[in-house]
Amino acid sequence: MSQPISFLSDFGHRDEFVGVVHGVLAKLAPSSRVIDVGHGFPRGNVKSAALALTRAVQYLPEGVCLAVVDPGVGTERKAIAAETTWGTFIGPDNGLLSPAVAMVGGATKIVSIENPEAIIPSPGQTFHGRDVFAPAAGLIASGEAAIHELGPQIPGEEIVPLLLPLTEAKNGTISGQAWWVDNFGNVQTNIAPEDMGSVGLGPGETITLKIGASTHSVPWVGSYADVDEGEALIHVDSVGLLALAVRGGRADEALNLAEGVAVSLAASRSATAE
Amino acid sequence: MSQPISFLSDFGHRDEFVGVVHGVLAKLAPSSRVIDVGHGFPRGNVKSAALALTRAVQYLPEGVCLAVVDPGVGTERKAIAAETTWGTFIGPDNGLLSPAVAMVGGATKIVSIENPEAIIPSPGQTFHGRDVFAPAAGLIASGEAAIHELGPQIPGEEIVPLLLPLTEAKNGTISGQAWWVDNFGNVQTNIAPEDMGSVGLGPGETITLKIGASTHSVPWVGSYADVDEGEALIHVDSVGLLALAVRGGRADEALNLAEGVAVSLAASRSATAE
Amino acid sequence: MSQPISFLSDFGHRDEFVGVVHGVLAKLAPSSRVIDVGHGFPRGNVKSAALALTRAVQYLPEGVCLAVVDPGVGTERKAIAAETTWGTFIGPDNGLLSPAVAMVGGATKIVSIENPEAIIPSPGQTFHGRDVFAPAAGLIASGEAAIHELGPQIPGEEIVPLLLPLTEAKNGTISGQAWWVDNFGNVQTNIAPEDMGSVGLGPGETITLKIGASTHSVPWVGSYADVDEGEALIHVDSVGLLALAVRGGRADEALNLAEGVAVSLAASRSATAE
Repeated sequence: MSQPISFLSDFGHRDEFVGVVHGVLAKLAPSSRVIDVGHGFPRGNVKSAALALTRAVQYLPEGVCLAVVDPGVGTERKAIAAETTWGTFIGPDNGLLSPAVAMVGGATKIVSIENPEAIIPSPGQTFHGRDVFAPAAGLIASGEAAIHELGPQIPGEEIVPLLLPLTEAKNGTISGQAWWVDNFGNVQTNIAPEDMGSVGLGPGETITLKIGASTHSVPWVGSYADVDEGEALIHVDSVGLLALAVRGGRADEALNLAEGVAVSLAASRSATAE
Repeated sequence: MSQPISFLSDFGHRDEFVGVVHGVLAKLAPSSRVIDVGHGFPRGNVKSAALALTRAVQYLPEGVCLAVVDPGVGTERKAIAAETTWGTFIGPDNGLLSPAVAMVGGATKIVSIENPEAIIPSPGQTFHGRDVFAPAAGLIASGEAAIHELGPQIPGEEIVPLLLPLTEAKNGTISGQAWWVDNFGNVQTNIAPEDMGSVGLGPGETITLKIGASTHSVPWVGSYADVDEGEALIHVDSVGLLALAVRGGRADEALNLAEGVAVSLAASRSATAE
Repeated sequence: MSQPISFLSDFGHRDEFVGVVHGVLAKLAPSSRVIDVGHGFPRGNVKSAALALTRAVQYLPEGVCLAVVDPGVGTERKAIAAETTWGTFIGPDNGLLSPAVAMVGGATKIVSIENPEAIIPSPGQTFHGRDVFAPAAGLIASGEAAIHELGPQIPGEEIVPLLLPLTEAKNGTISGQAWWVDNFGNVQTNIAPEDMGSVGLGPGETITLKIGASTHSVPWVGSYADVDEGEALIHVDSVGLLALAVRGGRADEALNLAEGVAVSLAASRSATAE
């Protein structure tokens, strides 16, 4: 029985790259449903795509996950397949798969995709999405190959991790960063509600938000409707992290935020905020 | 037997939003074909997406239509499912579904999606596409749920309509507006050939087109080939409405038009046009 | 048994055009898998899309290829279906299909799609993707119609070819052009390794690259990893043509290249290069 394949990349929609990978999958796994998780992630930005995959994975049907953001194509980086209880993750060994694999409980087996019979011969070394990763995904999804047939097993501790910034709690302030600005201008931070709880902050409070030299006083509310049109808010977003939004507007523009910018949150105990 | 699902949103292609909804649909309705009607509609522009859905619906396979352009997510607006002879329309109650539902003959039953068993629990209240609308679409498409199981029935007259601008005929002039500029720069108006007929205008005539203070003399022709390269034309477009185009060019740029701009059409009876 | 349909266009992702064609295909060929080869090709650029299709076709599952880049819609250009050993190619007769058809061995039969029973009646003449090409593709893919039922056969020599620039070898220099800049800024030329071999050039050599008045000295290497970050390289790309790239960067920007710009390659025999 064919497994569904969830496919994510930074190939964009200008060229035929995404379509060619779909073609390879259709040839090798003609009965597999293919879900495009997204292909518009920033070019070569492994972290951005890895976070997206981590947010998405619990909503994807169990089976095969094919992820290709591969700035190191043509270098020594490995091509890997990782077996988990969710299914099989396939992609470059550059940290892209690590957080999603961890999210579903970790890998029970990891192989380096090297078997020439599982790879499409090509004149060039630049399109491993088509020549290495898609064939592996198609073969696993169709049941034509088992993971150990793709290449030699490698120890999990040899895999490249994704280094993600941690939050810090100090003197009643949580420091973190903006780590995703979505298409609507909403800004997700790496700060969880539990981090806030650890310094005694919770929903309903007014929070002092610092971004560089700017300070804002922003209410922590349950939904957009709890503030007026055009007002900023802090809320727990659909993934469960603290996020900054502006009702009917763009928080990235209103607050001058971009991915990677440091933010800190603290209680607004005095009346001097804003 | 599983029904096909036609899916439209303003989620764009930068993030994983569209893919996550596909994941939810694949889990709940693994045998349903999913058609992406489009996800590039302007952010939060209910009217633009509603018109697109209305143009598209007669070409979509009968089944389930999942439409999410939802600037009011997290407010009091309802989530609805509307049963029609075409199939079931699912989306926010903000006017998005109304014209397409009317186009297929109106709704025979409308429910407010409130049953917690049909909704995916989430830490946040911002991604109803994933948590509320996609599960409803998947359950209906797979036959796992009937519409009345999604929530209480609500009267049709309580539904939010989409207010669309009407055309006006006066002194031989039809006044309307540009209401869609497509990717190629073609400008569809809300003026039908019948409107033109009511003031005695028809194909083959030269039309005086007024846009703000500018006046243009434009032929009403059958196809692009009836004018020279670079020339403007009026024609009945693929949806059956009067549209402005430039052969081999962009009418929006040539005529300084954008969605919502007022246009008027009249006979060119004198030689003073252009 | 239904055949898969590979679909390519310049419709973009802003409107519902791609989705409406999918709707028509789903109605006529409900069991056919549809692969989006790509829809982001430059508006009306037949050559760009034709080259993409030619690069892709060997990776697409045999069946039906529906390709619509159609700046001449509404003129006298024919709508054609071409039968090959790969399957059936359907699109406008403007050169779009010619190189891909040649790539799979040429057409055994070509018809002009004119049968009114195979065409969706429409108020306008501007959306042949929906009204003419998609129905033909759906009818062939589902087996509902044979190619000769679409319209009268036409001789292959009446088909519009795609005129592609040739390379020229003279005095040890190969002259060609940049003919594809991909989403990552990599620049494919129309020069094959065999062209280079004909003037005695091969991998491992340093090549003198001339673009307009600029001269660059660039190594011909096997993969990105053979040069330092930020350095330019020449390599055989994933399609088998010579391409210019910059490791970790964009060759189009670094070398001031765009599609159609002339380039020449020669041996770097003196020390005066760069």
